[in-house]
Amino acid sequence: MARNSETDELVPPDRTLLGPGPSDAHPRVLKAMATPFVGYLDDYYVEVMDDVQELLRMLFCTDNEYTFAVSGTGSAAMETAFANLVEPGETVLVPSNGYFGDRMGQIAERAGGEVVTVDAPWGEPLDPDDVAAAFDRHEPTVFGFVHGETSTGARQTQIPELARIAHDHDAYVIADTVASLGGVEFRTDEWGVDVVYSGSQKCLSAPPGSSPITFNDRAVQKVHDREEPVRSWYLDLEGVWEYWGAERNYHHTGPTATTYALREALRMVEEEGLEDRWARHRRVAGALKAGVEAMGVPLNVDDDHWLPTLNPVQVPDGVDDGRVIDRLMDEHGIEIVGGLGALSGDIFRVGCMGNSARPENITHFIAAFGSILAEEGADVDSDAGAVAAARALEE
Amino acid sequence: MARNSETDELVPPDRTLLGPGPSDAHPRVLKAMATPFVGYLDDYYVEVMDDVQELLRMLFCTDNEYTFAVSGTGSAAMETAFANLVEPGETVLVPSNGYFGDRMGQIAERAGGEVVTVDAPWGEPLDPDDVAAAFDRHEPTVFGFVHGETSTGARQTQIPELARIAHDHDAYVIADTVASLGGVEFRTDEWGVDVVYSGSQKCLSAPPGSSPITFNDRAVQKVHDREEPVRSWYLDLEGVWEYWGAERNYHHTGPTATTYALREALRMVEEEGLEDRWARHRRVAGALKAGVEAMGVPLNVDDDHWLPTLNPVQVPDGVDDGRVIDRLMDEHGIEIVGGLGALSGDIFRVGCMGNSARPENITHFIAAFGSILAEEGADVDSDAGAVAAARALEE
Repeated sequence: MARNSETDELVPPDRTLLGPGPSDAHPRVLKAMATPFVGYLDDYYVEVMDDVQELLRMLFCTDNEYTFAVSGTGSAAMETAFANLVEPGETVLVPSNGYFGDRMGQIAERAGGEVVTVDAPWGEPLDPDDVAAAFDRHEPTVFGFVHGETSTGARQTQIPELARIAHDHDAYVIADTVASLGGVEFRTDEWGVDVVYSGSQKCLSAPPGSSPITFNDRAVQKVHDREEPVRSWYLDLEGVWEYWGAERNYHHTGPTATTYALREALRMVEEEGLEDRWARHRRVAGALKAGVEAMGVPLNVDDDHWLPTLNPVQVPDGVDDGRVIDRLMDEHGIEIVGGLGALSGDIFRVGCMGNSARPENITHFIAAFGSILAEEGADVDSDAGAVAAARALEE
Repeated sequence: MARNSETDELVPPDRTLLGPGPSDAHPRVLKAMATPFVGYLDDYYVEVMDDVQELLRMLFCTDNEYTFAVSGTGSAAMETAFANLVEPGETVLVPSNGYFGDRMGQIAERAGGEVVTVDAPWGEPLDPDDVAAAFDRHEPTVFGFVHGETSTGARQTQIPELARIAHDHDAYVIADTVASLGGVEFRTDEWGVDVVYSGSQKCLSAPPGSSPITFNDRAVQKVHDREEPVRSWYLDLEGVWEYWGAERNYHHTGPTATTYALREALRMVEEEGLEDRWARHRRVAGALKAGVEAMGVPLNVDDDHWLPTLNPVQVPDGVDDGRVIDRLMDEHGIEIVGGLGALSGDIFRVGCMGNSARPENITHFIAAFGSILAEEGADVDSDAGAVAAARALEE
């Protein structure tokens, strides 16, 4: 080498990632990233792809053939779902109770869809009666909902009912599980959802860049029957399936490193067991919830639709949320974030996802959060919070 | 962990990647991939993004503000260029002398463009006179060309002339440098190209997933002035720029790991020096070229538009190209590939890119290739090939 780079060596500071993602990658996943590349049509890489597809079927609880990883982050998977399923002029029903429902609408519009919404207060899930009424009024072709709304921490319940309403109207259902898949129960086939997508950097703790998606046969047929080509070449299902399907023909270069990492993260899901993994998220996030509640700071969500992976913690009266977030980062290296949109300034969002969902992170967070809140003048009992979290973790 | 995964540990076989990409990553780049994540709005990650942008400006030889990495592979960067610059109904001129010019046309059509072509034989660059005639006939708004055609190994020359023709017609020029940037001279500003994109896994030897792109002010203005929104939300320039620009607002999750890796790969370009890196590719690929020619096997491209990073080696009479490719892989772990489209069965495509462009790879390849060709019945002088390659490397 002729000279030194003027750019410093890559040495990031230590962080405990308890925001809405990315979560902390496990060392095994980081090691997989450092594995030498092979060609994207190498026999070995084809086996890697096969493994990823089989493991993703386990993760999605599906037998769908069209199950693969989109070569982009979670929003690319969202666009893959809507851009393929929505044809220009079709009516698309999306929720207006969170940031990512809103994004679904924006993407569906780019695909040429006419977007209509079904409402619920921010922080609450959709009510099936409201969805049914919206179907009767608008007769949408495609209906999207968000299983775990990252912006509010609300978990959509009654999913089989939502799917039944849509299917009774010959419509298709798309579920966003970016903030939930691998951390919270979701059963694609049993619940009757046509298309489901997720991200890799949340409950899987893999790097962003290879995002899980699955289409059932009925959805694939709708894409096959399109009159106009999909507006994105890169995310076109039939093109991408040339590569991920049995043909293994070149469509675009496979993202080898993030696929390696996703495979390793999925192996770890298999080792832990999917249901045991859901239970771990409930238990560890349950300790987080018990800790803040015992401190005197409630969650901004009913227990019935609590989303263990993303906890909306109310900002106590008189406290500046930005200062608390900055102090957690500066003094403890802990990342949490504030509220978005209608909930800006009202909540902290505390993630508990994948490899970040570990007991030591929760005790670390509860202690730091309690003491900073007290110093910032909130009326909290930080000792009671620490005790409650520790007890919940022992159960 | 409760049980063992049924999926084997990730242990890829040893490969020497001399295909059209990916190339072999340097251990420093692999190590960067294994660096723990920070949040995608973490102050440290913002610095990483700043570094990447500054290093990409060095790589593109540009001062363009809008210089960043697309969160996808090279084809996502191609779509970012065309989907943003082309509005429905606009005429788009693309070359028909290779696979990736054809892909430009497919993507421009998805964006709503009317595609017209300018022809040249496969394996030859566009002639500026033909481009001028196509402009006079079709008056396109956008003109795309491929600097290094991966499918043929032809290098487009006379780029300032092509840009001048387009600008004389108030049109915009997009250059595909996926197979060339960082390996072969390309000067964005001096040559007057409006939008240039590339991939990360070829001459930069970083993982696919973070793809360089640059827009000059004139091109950005055209995107700002659009009447219809860009058809892809994920690749929308103004949305993406919310994140990569001064605001650093969330658009979609940044692909942290591949961005880390791209940064490290670009630091290595800076250390080597961009012009010295171009010279290395010429020297090392020159030895490859000298070796096969001395063996008696010519390249399928004139010296005037030789592309050092992708060498189209003619398949000798009577030789089955697929058998040679398979034997190189099975017996030596060397990846090369065959021809595409009009050149299928006529050429081998031998890449010499980034960290794969090392003398030891060339001597290894020339020896293995010569002996296999001889065994397969070709009339070649494999000793002369080895001697010529070794001599060229000593120069």
